[in-house]
This record gives sequence, C-alpha cells and structure tokens, in this order.
Amino acid sequence: MSAFSWPVRVYWEDTDAAGVVYYASYLRYLERARTEWLRSLGYSQRSLAVGPGIVFAVASLTIDYRLPAKLDDALTVTCEPCRSGRASLTFPQHVYRASAGAAGQELVVEASVRVVCLDARNLRPQRLPEFLALALQ
Amino acid sequence: MSAFSWPVRVYWEDTDAAGVVYYASYLRYLERARTEWLRSLGYSQRSLAVGPGIVFAVASLTIDYRLPAKLDDALTVTCEPCRSGRASLTFPQHVYRASAGAAGQELVVEASVRVVCLDARNLRPQRLPEFLALALQ
Amino acid sequence: MSAFSWPVRVYWEDTDAAGVVYYASYLRYLERARTEWLRSLGYSQRSLAVGPGIVFAVASLTIDYRLPAKLDDALTVTCEPCRSGRASLTFPQHVYRASAGAAGQELVVEASVRVVCLDARNLRPQRLPEFLALALQ
Amino acid sequence: MSAFSWPVRVYWEDTDAAGVVYYASYLRYLERARTEWLRSLGYSQRSLAVGPGIVFAVASLTIDYRLPAKLDDALTVTCEPCRSGRASLTFPQHVYRASAGAAGQELVVEASVRVVCLDARNLRPQRLPEFLALALQ
Repeated sequence: MSAFSWPVRVYWEDTDAAGVVYYASYLRYLERARTEWLRSLGYSQRSLAVGPGIVFAVASLTIDYRLPAKLDDALTVTCEPCRSGRASLTFPQHVYRASAGAAGQELVVEASVRVVCLDARNLRPQRLPEFLALALQ
Repeated sequence: MSAFSWPVRVYWEDTDAAGVVYYASYLRYLERARTEWLRSLGYSQRSLAVGPGIVFAVASLTIDYRLPAKLDDALTVTCEPCRSGRASLTFPQHVYRASAGAAGQELVVEASVRVVCLDARNLRPQRLPEFLALALQ
Repeated sequence: MSAFSWPVRVYWEDTDAAGVVYYASYLRYLERARTEWLRSLGYSQRSLAVGPGIVFAVASLTIDYRLPAKLDDALTVTCEPCRSGRASLTFPQHVYRASAGAAGQELVVEASVRVVCLDARNLRPQRLPEFLALALQ
Repeated sequence: MSAFSWPVRVYWEDTDAAGVVYYASYLRYLERARTEWLRSLGYSQRSLAVGPGIVFAVASLTIDYRLPAKLDDALTVTCEPCRSGRASLTFPQHVYRASAGAAGQELVVEASVRVVCLDARNLRPQRLPEFLALALQ
C-alpha cells in the first residue's frame, strides 16, 4: 500500500516556550493522519465504534525527533499502515516540512505506531474487520 | 463560602512560542481547581457520574488576561463557587503568581465560569445534589 | 467586513471522557480561524513578529457553549474582526456544525475575543499596523 | 541513582472520548517528572536557559501503553536518569496507578526518553553541565 499523506499547519497551540513544536504535539499530528487514512477508506472511528463495535488503541510507539518544526510551518504527515498480526496494525509514519528554496522536503519526525483493534464492549483484542484486512493486503 | 485554592506549576506543555502560558491553558488550570474543590467536599466527578448520575458542563465563561505567566511559575488558582439557579453554579476564579521580592501576589487571570448540573443519562438540566446545595449555603 | 470562515475537524485530541469536545479545545479552534484570517490578508504571525516586530495577545474573551461537538464532527469557525481602539481588535466568532438532514447549521459556540497589538521587543501596546487598519475599515 | 517519583492526577483535560487518558497526555506527565527531578537538584529549566545557556530537547522516545488510566486516577510517574553520552541523558520512566484493594501498584505506561543537552544560542549539542554529570555518577 502506498503512503497516505495529510497536511498539518502549525499553530500557537502546538508550540512551546522553546519556540518550537512541543514534543507531544506530534502525536496529535500522527493520529490525525491515521484517522484521515481510515476516513479515506470510507470509515470514521465513531461509526466503527457504534456500528461493528470496534475501537482502536495505541499499544506502543517509537518516535525520533529530527528537526524542530516552528509556528506557521506547513507540514505533511504520512502513514503506511501494514498488518502486524490478527488484531493489530503497524503504522510507519513521517512528518515532513516543505524545504524553502530546495527541491525536496525535510524530515522532521519519524515514528512507528502499533495500534490494536478492540471490541468496544469489553476492550478485548478483536480480529481486524474485513474492510481493513482487504485494504492492507 | 471562603475561597478554595489550588497550586499549579507551569510546565513546557502549558506554554507557547511567545514564551508565555498559552491562553487556553488557563482553562485547564481553572478546571483543576473546580475539580479539587469538589474533591475537598468528598466527591469525585467520576463517582458522581456513576452514582447519582450527575455530570457538570461549562455553559459559559468570561476571562481577563492580566499578566502573562511563564515557564516554572508557581501559580495559585482559586474558586469561590456560588449557586446561580436551581441547576447551576457560578465560579468566580482567579489565578495568582507569588510576587518575587514583594509582600503580595500578582493577579494573572480573572474569570467567571458558569457550570450546569446535568442528568448523565439524557444530559438534561438537573437540580443540584443536596450536598452541593448545602455546601453553597 | 464579511465573516471569514475556516473548517475544523474534531479529532480524539480535542475530546474528553464526557464524549464531547473539551471546553478549552474551542479556544484552539477560535485561534486557528483568527490566524488564518490574518494569513488570508497575506501575513503570518511569525513574519509580523520578525519584520515589523508586532505580536498579538488575547486580552479577554467571553464564550457561550450552546451545543456539544463530538468526535469526527466537521465544524466551521468564523471570525468578523473589527477595530476596537488604537491598539486592539475585537473578534466576534462562532463555531457551527453542519446539521444532518436539515437545511442549515447548528450553532455550537459563540464567542467574543479581544486582542491587543504589542511591540514584540517590550510587549507594550502598539498602534495597529497600516494593513490591518485598512482591512478593518 | 534511585528512581525519582512525582504524583500526577488525571483531569478532564487529559482524557479523550474513549473514556481514558489520551495517548499524548502521558508525554506531558513524563516531562513533568523529568522537570521536577531537575528541580529536586536545585535547577529550573528557565534558570539553566538564562544562566549557563543550556536547553534540553527530546531526541527520541519509546513508549508502551499497558493499562488505560482514567479520570480522577492518582498516578505516580518515575524517572531514573542515566548518562548516555557526552551530551545526552536517557530516562527510563514508568507511570503507575495505586491498585485498589491490592498491595501493589499497576503499571500503566513504560517509556524510555533520550534527551540531548543543547547550547541555547545555537542549538548545538553541548557537554552536560557539571552538576548533572555529578548527579548521574
């Protein structure tokens, strides 16, 4: 599956007194991209919770901070989901910043996020729904 | 009822790239003080939601930003709750900073927050529980 | 000046355990709309801070919470800035949600935010820059 | 060096619509404990930035989410800093919840955070200050 990408703008709410994006704010950005990837398949998390009774939870993640993003930066967040078991997904994710005056993009953050699929009623691991299994083939 | 007060420390998470506390962070501080005032009466919001089936929602607020608080500041947040109807409370609240080298405190933020009491099942306004009505006399 | 509007999507980061958007999250939404209005005039806050040495600070606000927004809601945030003195602006702002199955929109939040223009070096009030005074006529 | 620990209470601001603590909120908790550990040595981050001109930046982290914390939970956040190079520190960190009715504590989150020491003027890596090197022996 090719990478899905989602644009994110840096606002005051995302920054801290060091003048850069606060380290926890990137986790918010990463989740927006995962949520929008799911929406691009036709599913919202609210509808999955109410309908088939599925919720997703982050089980673990690793993140490397390469360059500090700043106020007003226009970022691109990617995700390349792959199945990592009967009930879980792994999302390699990147945050890029358009590089002023250069051809390419600068890598701001590199992460890997493992998400498990849970039964909304009892929070026990549950097999990935069919549409996800298909999308990830 | 005399003012209840609660200490709050400013961390990186609270600040923004202007080097001061982000304007929405004060709403988090104000809520911590209201929650701790309730706890000082012997009630947590989770127990009230599960037991008598009561939740509180902010209906409106006004806030004046007087002085910018900064990283590492030790603040004091007060609340002086008073009944403002059958199903609602008004909390005049202040945020102070200990004033270096002076006798008193500096006023950082002044706010007034109106909270309504709701039935947790249908989110309709509900009479204040007895313990609150008594505490506010 | 007619209203400027900006779309905002509700993500997990914006919600709380009551299942709705946390009351402080709306202040983040309101600021995104003000920042994007400024950008629509051709100015970013970073460029104003570095160039003419101007920063904006929220001096006070009032906010009424009318309806709770929820996860995945697509909201519209408006601002209708008007001059309110030599060095300050007032932004009446609204948050709407597209109303499912109806012709119109539901009002979620109504706010009024007063912003002062400051000299970036000494944080003293400073006359609004020419481009803003013109835009607000 | 034995573990430093810091109490954290879960408020509405920390939770999300799944009824648990939002996954990025734990990064805020982890940082409070690191900051308070530094303060326990007699140093605030603001004084280090202004005085010797030192700032700390998170370079990378890994985090495992073991149990979901909830509204009103009283948590304990630990850090056990160790030197991991000329200019960096690694903080194994844990978040525990007092276990109701049991002798021990439940592990909520396990993390490892690598922090680099930077020169505040040019953001280049800088040797750990003497007091830190001594504290970490």
